[in-house]
Amino acid sequence: MRLAIQLSEENVQNGGGPFGAVIAKNGEVIATGVNRVTANNDPTAHAEVSAIRAACQKVKNFKLDGCVVYSSCEPCPMCLSALYWAGVSKIYYANTKDDAKAINFDDSFIYEQLSLERNERSIASEQMLRDEALKAFEMWRDKEDKTEY
Amino acid sequence: MRLAIQLSEENVQNGGGPFGAVIAKNGEVIATGVNRVTANNDPTAHAEVSAIRAACQKVKNFKLDGCVVYSSCEPCPMCLSALYWAGVSKIYYANTKDDAKAINFDDSFIYEQLSLERNERSIASEQMLRDEALKAFEMWRDKEDKTEY
Repeated sequence: MRLAIQLSEENVQNGGGPFGAVIAKNGEVIATGVNRVTANNDPTAHAEVSAIRAACQKVKNFKLDGCVVYSSCEPCPMCLSALYWAGVSKIYYANTKDDAKAINFDDSFIYEQLSLERNERSIASEQMLRDEALKAFEMWRDKEDKTEY
Repeated sequence: MRLAIQLSEENVQNGGGPFGAVIAKNGEVIATGVNRVTANNDPTAHAEVSAIRAACQKVKNFKLDGCVVYSSCEPCPMCLSALYWAGVSKIYYANTKDDAKAINFDDSFIYEQLSLERNERSIASEQMLRDEALKAFEMWRDKEDKTEY
């Protein structure tokens, strides 16, 4: 965690947000990440997502079984979801989402939005062409040499 | 949407998952994305996240104001959160998350996990070293030449 914190401080000096993350397996660091949203024009480049992507390249797998993440701040819904998809074993965090909110990084509105029904959310969503889209799902279902996850 | 659907079908043939997304602004396509999770060993490479990253590179901004997304399937919580961070105006989708679940792409467990309190989630989380981590947040708060988002 001290490495994640150090990265978060260095990243502020390097033009990024105050967030760092480290992914470790069996007590060994396998990847790190920092927030490069504004620096790289990438709204998905949060510290945890960046660390997940780097760790997966390192282990050459799309799952991070047996890995733990140390994040200098509690994950936002995007990062927490990504950690579920990656299948990490445990999340350690330092600052809380309330600490983040106090410096104007507020993700609580996204947690609220996700808990609403589709038609109640602030970003409207509308279904169309489902009958045409189902074909790709049928192709997937019938494919024999696929990698499921 | 027909382009997103076409991409989803092509992606199955190209070793990816059956998902495609298109981001458009003022009626013009600015970027596309497909699911490359297993192909690229990147659990964050869902169609929408890939399209967001590509669109942001195209417009050279970390926000996608005024953009709409056409996704061949309803976004998972990671992608929906990313769409909130990107600030898109509207989401069109074709297949539903229930359609996805029927071919073993089940994201409903993540929606459920996100709605739980930290200590009730299946991935345990634990706080540590908050007092040390706060320094980076103070550095950010006091920084004058920062880009907020």
